[in-house]
Amino acid sequence: MILAFIISLIYSEYDQAAFLISAGINITLGGLIVYLTRKVNKDIGRKEGYIIVSSVWIVFSFFGSLPYVISGAIPNFTNAFFETMSGFTTTGSSILADIESLPHGILFWRSITQWLGGMGIIVLSLAILPVFGIGGMQLYTAEVPGPTPDKISPRIRQTAKTLWVIYLGFTVTEALLLWVGGMSVFDAVCHSFTTMATGGFSTKQASIAHWSSPFIHYVIVVFMFFAGTNFTLSYLAIQGKFKRVFKDEELKYYGFFILVFTAIVFTGLLITSQLGVEKSFRDALFQVVSIITTTGYATADYLTWAPILTIIIFVLFFFGGSAGSTGGGMKIMRIVLLLKNSYYELRRMVHPHAIIPVKFNNHSVDAKIVTNVLAFFMFYFAIFGASTVIFTLIEPDMESAMGAVATSLGNIGPGIGNVGPADNFLHIKPLGKWFLSFLMLLGRLELFTVLVLFSPSFWKE
Amino acid sequence: MILAFIISLIYSEYDQAAFLISAGINITLGGLIVYLTRKVNKDIGRKEGYIIVSSVWIVFSFFGSLPYVISGAIPNFTNAFFETMSGFTTTGSSILADIESLPHGILFWRSITQWLGGMGIIVLSLAILPVFGIGGMQLYTAEVPGPTPDKISPRIRQTAKTLWVIYLGFTVTEALLLWVGGMSVFDAVCHSFTTMATGGFSTKQASIAHWSSPFIHYVIVVFMFFAGTNFTLSYLAIQGKFKRVFKDEELKYYGFFILVFTAIVFTGLLITSQLGVEKSFRDALFQVVSIITTTGYATADYLTWAPILTIIIFVLFFFGGSAGSTGGGMKIMRIVLLLKNSYYELRRMVHPHAIIPVKFNNHSVDAKIVTNVLAFFMFYFAIFGASTVIFTLIEPDMESAMGAVATSLGNIGPGIGNVGPADNFLHIKPLGKWFLSFLMLLGRLELFTVLVLFSPSFWKE
Repeated sequence: MILAFIISLIYSEYDQAAFLISAGINITLGGLIVYLTRKVNKDIGRKEGYIIVSSVWIVFSFFGSLPYVISGAIPNFTNAFFETMSGFTTTGSSILADIESLPHGILFWRSITQWLGGMGIIVLSLAILPVFGIGGMQLYTAEVPGPTPDKISPRIRQTAKTLWVIYLGFTVTEALLLWVGGMSVFDAVCHSFTTMATGGFSTKQASIAHWSSPFIHYVIVVFMFFAGTNFTLSYLAIQGKFKRVFKDEELKYYGFFILVFTAIVFTGLLITSQLGVEKSFRDALFQVVSIITTTGYATADYLTWAPILTIIIFVLFFFGGSAGSTGGGMKIMRIVLLLKNSYYELRRMVHPHAIIPVKFNNHSVDAKIVTNVLAFFMFYFAIFGASTVIFTLIEPDMESAMGAVATSLGNIGPGIGNVGPADNFLHIKPLGKWFLSFLMLLGRLELFTVLVLFSPSFWKE
Repeated sequence: MILAFIISLIYSEYDQAAFLISAGINITLGGLIVYLTRKVNKDIGRKEGYIIVSSVWIVFSFFGSLPYVISGAIPNFTNAFFETMSGFTTTGSSILADIESLPHGILFWRSITQWLGGMGIIVLSLAILPVFGIGGMQLYTAEVPGPTPDKISPRIRQTAKTLWVIYLGFTVTEALLLWVGGMSVFDAVCHSFTTMATGGFSTKQASIAHWSSPFIHYVIVVFMFFAGTNFTLSYLAIQGKFKRVFKDEELKYYGFFILVFTAIVFTGLLITSQLGVEKSFRDALFQVVSIITTTGYATADYLTWAPILTIIIFVLFFFGGSAGSTGGGMKIMRIVLLLKNSYYELRRMVHPHAIIPVKFNNHSVDAKIVTNVLAFFMFYFAIFGASTVIFTLIEPDMESAMGAVATSLGNIGPGIGNVGPADNFLHIKPLGKWFLSFLMLLGRLELFTVLVLFSPSFWKE
């Protein structure tokens, strides 16, 4: 908020006081809590961990929405909370109908909520969730230098530090390249924040379509791609362990899915549109990478494409980035494990007495992890189905309801129907906005972290 | 076909020759095959079993479509094959736009394809698939008197005989009650055939809505319910083992789901329609039972209901009857196992060192079965998603494509969009009809039986 205050000073706009007041409220309240709990035992157990992780995002979104409300940029609290939750969860769905009219400080704050949320997710998925034995990184915990249950704090601190440096490095590099490509310094910084977070907030109403430069589009594609990879791989690359990076199975499948879907959409655009080869390829690649990484930027409105291409994009809503990336969704690793398990089941049927475990990165995957991933998948689809039904009470159009629910749960941004890339979420009823905010949180924390709080056995004893 | 020929004689209509010629072709070809293979070793192994089960439905549908084509009732072969596959798989989707104009023999043949298909499925799911260790009945095989792998034929023959008697008993009772309720003998017999098969073919274009009698509606609800239960339970009931019947967990959940969904739809209709209490309740109950059992009869067009009620019905497309019933879909047992496993996963997270197996009917479920069920679920949704995408190439409307694919895969009958209960499948392009016919087969044979044929390891060695 202090950074956003400085931006508002530079541009001398009306949002200066809002940031000072908001920062003041946070410092006062935060200081009070630190002071009042200074003698409380801060040993964190498993259960406290679940509660803290879930409540942090809610508390942050509440206090993070203060600058919007106080400055009057988003006077309605429901809208402000939705925008902030969409920021911190790196979803990127917006209720703003005229982004360019907002002061620079507010736009900067909007981008930085995503950047902070993205960092938070990396620390959470690489350092904290594995301690609980959940999350997409389960498969890596044995291999990758991570925290051990005995000494959580020191290891988390060390891991988090390394990751911050990598994250910052990517962000600075992208900002420089976007600036070279013709963006203003302000736009370049804001967009590099929201790219690396796979967030998707833009400083322009038209999103990346505002810029026609192919260079800018390709730079963003490359950094969306990096943001959707496991950050542990970047760490290994820095240490020069390229062999292990390129051997990583999730990375291979991630690249494979992008290639296949881009090829399909590219072919479809060539046949059905008049865009020409390069623009068809660029639009296909950009939209596929944007959706699979759950960023949600747009250089084209996929709802205006041939129906089958729109549906292919909607199928991508259920993919997501790699485990240990800033991307949301189901995660590539889970999809691959599920596909492998299903395929192996066919082999098990032909050879019923053979023991055929699922393998990942050349290691047999513990049956417990497979069961967990399958339970995740079941929850994901059950929540998607039930939420769509509930949401039609608020938004009667089935396609729009499916789009809004899928994009919130997957932390993507735009949906289908009346919440597509050329639309926004302003027209959704207040209750619907709170509901979607909850789905963003649920999706961002990989379901279990939140769901476990609703389990009776959690509260027993 | 001989029975249908007799019906056509009684009504002295134009389809007599068609049945004689079709029966003649079948007897000649069948006789020839029996004669030519008389010296071939007929020991059936696992692989031969998979091939036979899949090809039987295709061969039957091919030869079963002869009466339609030869009589000229459905002159187009693609349409005739679609109608026959929809019959034998007990789906109930129809390409007929004027059912009442058809001769009685053809209508009877149409109903009897479903009745035979329904019986075939019971024998398949209770006696044959368990031998391969797949199918919804996996959980029961240990408990229920079924065939042992050592001596398949005699046990299958004995089990099949008992099941035929139960199936026939239900059919005769329902026909009598429908006749008492005011249906003609012909309509009563045809509808009891297609009820017990959870098929859904009607002799009237308006389906069951043709009759306004509440008695007829409730009789059909009761027998759809029975048709959707595990037939082993009827066998136990006949032996007086009621305690075991009422203790059965799948039966309890089956009843529970029907109650809950009926209550929701009933409430919805009360609020949003002017139907009155009894008619709202009857319409809700009838449509819920019709869809959950995958019968597909209609007394009301759920597409004209409030959007949320339509979507709730669409969610029911993914349920299905009990294992060992004539119902299609995912099956109640699988849904329950999946929900339990997901719920237990939350408990496993709170107590990470406890071993918490999934229980069903008070027995721990083998992890292998859980993995199999989860693989089934994954395949089901992957096939649903991929098929919807492919089908939009043929039918660009996404909702209609989802409806057509889901109803075919679940062997239900009507869909949503332009293939709703008040519509038919005539307008679908030929390629689309072949594609949907394949999905019917895939769904009917519980995916694995067909999918294993596409697995490279099946053809190796």
